[in-house]
Amino acid sequence: MRAYNFSAGPAILPEEVLKEAAAELVDYQGTGMSIMEMSHRGKDYSAVHDECIANIKELLNIPEGYSVLFMTGGASTQFPLIPMNLLGEGETADYTNSGAWAKKAIQEAQMLGNVNIAADCGKEIPTRVPTIDELQLTDGAAYLHITSNETISGAQWKEFPEHDCLIADMSSDILSRPLDVSKFGLIYAGAQKNLGPAGITLVIIKDELAEKCPDTVPTIFRYKTHIENNSLYNTVPTFPVYMLCLVTRWLKAQGGLEGMQKINEAKAAKLYDLFDSSDFYNGTAVKEFRSTMNVTWRLPTEELEAEFIAEAAKQNLKTLKGHRSVGGIRASIYNAFPTEGIDALIAFMKEFEAKHS
Amino acid sequence: MRAYNFSAGPAILPEEVLKEAAAELVDYQGTGMSIMEMSHRGKDYSAVHDECIANIKELLNIPEGYSVLFMTGGASTQFPLIPMNLLGEGETADYTNSGAWAKKAIQEAQMLGNVNIAADCGKEIPTRVPTIDELQLTDGAAYLHITSNETISGAQWKEFPEHDCLIADMSSDILSRPLDVSKFGLIYAGAQKNLGPAGITLVIIKDELAEKCPDTVPTIFRYKTHIENNSLYNTVPTFPVYMLCLVTRWLKAQGGLEGMQKINEAKAAKLYDLFDSSDFYNGTAVKEFRSTMNVTWRLPTEELEAEFIAEAAKQNLKTLKGHRSVGGIRASIYNAFPTEGIDALIAFMKEFEAKHS
Repeated sequence: MRAYNFSAGPAILPEEVLKEAAAELVDYQGTGMSIMEMSHRGKDYSAVHDECIANIKELLNIPEGYSVLFMTGGASTQFPLIPMNLLGEGETADYTNSGAWAKKAIQEAQMLGNVNIAADCGKEIPTRVPTIDELQLTDGAAYLHITSNETISGAQWKEFPEHDCLIADMSSDILSRPLDVSKFGLIYAGAQKNLGPAGITLVIIKDELAEKCPDTVPTIFRYKTHIENNSLYNTVPTFPVYMLCLVTRWLKAQGGLEGMQKINEAKAAKLYDLFDSSDFYNGTAVKEFRSTMNVTWRLPTEELEAEFIAEAAKQNLKTLKGHRSVGGIRASIYNAFPTEGIDALIAFMKEFEAKHS
Repeated sequence: MRAYNFSAGPAILPEEVLKEAAAELVDYQGTGMSIMEMSHRGKDYSAVHDECIANIKELLNIPEGYSVLFMTGGASTQFPLIPMNLLGEGETADYTNSGAWAKKAIQEAQMLGNVNIAADCGKEIPTRVPTIDELQLTDGAAYLHITSNETISGAQWKEFPEHDCLIADMSSDILSRPLDVSKFGLIYAGAQKNLGPAGITLVIIKDELAEKCPDTVPTIFRYKTHIENNSLYNTVPTFPVYMLCLVTRWLKAQGGLEGMQKINEAKAAKLYDLFDSSDFYNGTAVKEFRSTMNVTWRLPTEELEAEFIAEAAKQNLKTLKGHRSVGGIRASIYNAFPTEGIDALIAFMKEFEAKHS
């Protein structure tokens, strides 16, 4: 039986995608080879690579002048790459602190250049992201960095600030809703939450930004290198890109990002409605910033939380434990998480509340 | 029908490994999840991660004081990381130039510090790697860097120089033969030739070296970070590690690296013996440096080479074209390439020679 897997990442993938990958894993479309045994420059893999880029451009309606890149090392590698490429000598970068992931981005940038904290709500409980009104921006800042969704706390930006160069870590909500890419200079996301298996980092970059990188930056660390080589400067992780390609096909079949957003909002609303009608379950994010991807809540005691997690696991509701740094309960309900799993969780929650409140 | 796949990388994998991965891709050992849907900190993946490290330590008989790391970005990312971590201010690093890959390592190091070319045979045809006798080493050099096997030209180091800190790019011959790891400071290898699918870089490092890295290097780029976190500082590419784990089990079943070496030498000898008895096929590597992994040769004309490649493909002998930078023919016959495929290639070569000479 397929588990209802609430893992925050690596996370659930569409069952159809896994079945397709399994069916052709040994022999890719009659070639006598696995897709992962093929040259990254051969025609079979190239078709997958190019289709994946085209699908992402189509899903996000990406305008001319932007490139879609496949890089490696996760968001944690983008944290230093962004200032290395885009923060010039003597310039300042604005960062917003909204929690654990934003803070990591800030710490790495501070090692490499001048950083201004444009807003800080990283320690607030209940958690939220900054409001656009409270941002204290630097005149002429090289860029403004935000974390569109905080995976650990479950708070999410619902609208985005205007900026000449807005950069967003979208690791945990990329492709979960439509987006006006033209408002951004750079978007990045580790794949293992909403895109595919761990091992690939999606980067969407306005090409002209990449020109800024000084020649002292090693070749592989320049966005320019990857733009010029269509992400094939060196061997790209071919199998993770293949999986991402299958996921993009699946997304198109869900009605694209408009369709996906409706499904995601409906899934999340079921849980948030339960919090709002219960004194037993307390959501940890401020209402207007509640994430559609990571839903976090507390029970009256830590003992009850431990029992909740253990009992849920017995009913096939897996990996509900909150992040080790904050405790509590977290249901990560990314694109691929099925609505039936939400219904099963809610039925369990009602039963658990009736027994313990 | 399974192809005889001579791709230089991403390359052939053991058929048994692919079949096992396919069989449990949707449901990993009754958990109701794919291995690629699981948290990198959960117990199922952790068992794979730790077994993979243990198997590599066992296969290479790695002494105490060394760590086995899973990193990302391929050998091309190690090119800058090595000087960033290990080449101190004012120090010099010795590099040997043996061809295209060595040269890339040199170019990135030159951007970051002082480099001495200890030997240069990068442009010699027929190709070879340096001899130990000809090395012109710098007193007190931070390290000596070599490329143990040049994938493009097919030349390989058969014995290694003594050095206080010997560093080797072993991307194309790691785990193909026994190795005295204690002679090395750092060994690295992109996975996609002899280890598994693209997306993971194996690094074997003497722990004390990692202490040298200055605090100005971004956290994710320090070997120390990955040593201290057992390669789990951020999300490791879990599926590529899982595949590597299956490959290490397969290697143990081949009789470990002693067993694998015998098989590899026997496979390569069949091709080299044919060159030595033919005027039609001319090996491109100097005899004593002939690689057991990448066998390269020329035919009398480029027209015949094109015909050879096309005819071979029709007989299920795939991807024999030499690297675009040098032309000719290349048979990459890594660990997973079966002996039957060599026999089929030789039968084809004899037939082709009889028809055209």
